[in-house]
Amino acid sequence: MSLFDKFADVADLYAHLTEDGIAPVGTPIERVLSPTHGIVDGKEVILAGTNNYLGLTYDPACIEAGKQSLDEEGTGTTGSRLANGSYHGHHALEAELSRAFCMRSAIVFTTGYQANLGIISTIVGRGDAIVMDADSHASIYDGAKMSGADVHRFRHNDAADLAKRVKRLKSKVDHVLIITEGIFSMLGDRAPIREIVEVKRESGAYLMIDEAHSFGILGPRGLGLAEAQGCLQDMDFVLGTFSKSLGSVGGYCVSDHEGLDAVRHSMRAYMFTASSTPASIATVRAALQVMQERPELRAQLRRNFERVYEGLKNLGFVLGPQPGPVVAARFEDATEALHAWRRLLAAGVYVNLVVPPATPGQYSLLRCSLSAAHSDDEVDRILAGYARIQS
Amino acid sequence: MSLFDKFADVADLYAHLTEDGIAPVGTPIERVLSPTHGIVDGKEVILAGTNNYLGLTYDPACIEAGKQSLDEEGTGTTGSRLANGSYHGHHALEAELSRAFCMRSAIVFTTGYQANLGIISTIVGRGDAIVMDADSHASIYDGAKMSGADVHRFRHNDAADLAKRVKRLKSKVDHVLIITEGIFSMLGDRAPIREIVEVKRESGAYLMIDEAHSFGILGPRGLGLAEAQGCLQDMDFVLGTFSKSLGSVGGYCVSDHEGLDAVRHSMRAYMFTASSTPASIATVRAALQVMQERPELRAQLRRNFERVYEGLKNLGFVLGPQPGPVVAARFEDATEALHAWRRLLAAGVYVNLVVPPATPGQYSLLRCSLSAAHSDDEVDRILAGYARIQS
Repeated sequence: MSLFDKFADVADLYAHLTEDGIAPVGTPIERVLSPTHGIVDGKEVILAGTNNYLGLTYDPACIEAGKQSLDEEGTGTTGSRLANGSYHGHHALEAELSRAFCMRSAIVFTTGYQANLGIISTIVGRGDAIVMDADSHASIYDGAKMSGADVHRFRHNDAADLAKRVKRLKSKVDHVLIITEGIFSMLGDRAPIREIVEVKRESGAYLMIDEAHSFGILGPRGLGLAEAQGCLQDMDFVLGTFSKSLGSVGGYCVSDHEGLDAVRHSMRAYMFTASSTPASIATVRAALQVMQERPELRAQLRRNFERVYEGLKNLGFVLGPQPGPVVAARFEDATEALHAWRRLLAAGVYVNLVVPPATPGQYSLLRCSLSAAHSDDEVDRILAGYARIQS
Repeated sequence: MSLFDKFADVADLYAHLTEDGIAPVGTPIERVLSPTHGIVDGKEVILAGTNNYLGLTYDPACIEAGKQSLDEEGTGTTGSRLANGSYHGHHALEAELSRAFCMRSAIVFTTGYQANLGIISTIVGRGDAIVMDADSHASIYDGAKMSGADVHRFRHNDAADLAKRVKRLKSKVDHVLIITEGIFSMLGDRAPIREIVEVKRESGAYLMIDEAHSFGILGPRGLGLAEAQGCLQDMDFVLGTFSKSLGSVGGYCVSDHEGLDAVRHSMRAYMFTASSTPASIATVRAALQVMQERPELRAQLRRNFERVYEGLKNLGFVLGPQPGPVVAARFEDATEALHAWRRLLAAGVYVNLVVPPATPGQYSLLRCSLSAAHSDDEVDRILAGYARIQS
């Protein structure tokens, strides 16, 4: 018996998905032409399955910042943040995030996955409890598992269920850490953050929000759901990523707690990994500035996703509960979803196919992600593509 | 009582280390001027505390590849490898690594940390056992912990101890995975890989080697310790990083097992993270080519580290057991090591200070890393700096 036997089922599943054409999962993007166009399976398509929410990947200021950094600082730091990997840009970005959120501390990580893994696994441990939304991202689950704390899940976006669980736990553990997300990645829906803040206040728990899919998108300054709902000051930890709105790779944690900075020296996913490349940091800093200076990008993104949400609803697709930058159409059957994905691609629209077990429930999803860079005409063509699925 | 109380001791320790001057851990590198020079604490120093082993961070071909990628492909993929984050470059790099190692499969990861975390936590699990070198990197420990397998440590570089443990376990578990490193990061010493291969052969265990600090450095083609010792074909999994010899960020796993490719779809640290930026992949591909075409870089690196190893030994420093790209001088006392680090910096030489618990044993280390880019004159000045510590 081989170590690999246990992967046979999943290999079969993906082989099956790829029988009739190009792989719908891990699809090779042969060439990218712009934030919204690329070559897939030999032909030009509209990219509507990226997280390029503000469309900044080809922003001239970001590209120029990256190129200048390559010339001046080289291709990489070749060291961790705690060794030789803290360049001027890493510190400057932390200061800029700190300022943007009006919070004391910010820590920058090499990936968003490692931000969640590092922070969660370090700040709580044995004797503490985590109470997290059941639909949380894998990196939150992994951080929770690594922490050694007792891990409890509350029903997705159900603050009453959260309250019940926190109340039951509170007297039995040292600390309770509540974790939710701003916008959820699969269905594009939002946490009932004000109700969750009530639970936090009543119980004295700590509250962490992952704004990966809402940073740059919600709130008057684009800081995410907590800002949009006027309760940023109630967040103990705000986490997010550079790989979506800001168009690069990496993650961050900001907090108004004075103690956050000291956590760096205990956080394995921060200490034992090479720091972000200077060019990546440079493009993120430029993108953060664009995000702050151009709120019209958020407005355009909102227009685009509201149009697609309404359009798909009118076409009869079963969608998530509210419009968001991710508009996910639900299919009961994976094969049906696969055929829909292929028809959409044939119509010139690339979206993400997500099949169980990566989805909540046992549904399959066609996950369309919008960008501020999608033109009205491109949104029309996306909607026309979906209309063809059903014809 | 606050969540942050548990970090007070480590905060005190690092505050103490920083009392008399610039932080010796997480030292701000104000500006980088070349692979071997930078501005630290306001003055120009020789960088001898990076992992820039081949000195490629300013290689013109690498920088040009990164800049061209930024122009053509943008600042990031904004998606995971299983969604829209598999660009031509990601596939091409996997093919190039596969070809370099003459092995069937290669998987590229966003960080080296996530390569170890993802592979180890996925390929073994409950019912299996991991037997790993006690001095393994944190990312190996984290992957092992996450796997659910029984985790056993063998005495550092002690193949007899490994054999005993594997023999004891073999009949009780489904699979045994042995893990070692090529060159160890703290002392620069090498695994007795041929003896470890004997244990693997006799027991039928799987064998994984992390060549993070040996890829690009050892072996006729620079593939690492296993190649250097003529036993590459005995490795089931070779892991490594792009953030050292190749001067960027990311990691890889290569294997000749046909099953490796299917593991992608089960590996959380691969599936649920944004893929490497196209520019980072482009610089890595260029660096891999330079590494393959210029074996003289490895020869120069070896000359440099052998000179420093001999020089420090002659000065009376207590070093690791054999010369390597990392030459670590051991101090019994952290304060003494700190003073030495400050004197070395004052002499214009930046190295890494490593204090417990990040070190093996309870020693403190001055960890000098050499580069092929260090000139003879720079090596002289490094040695002169160490001489001043002792005067």
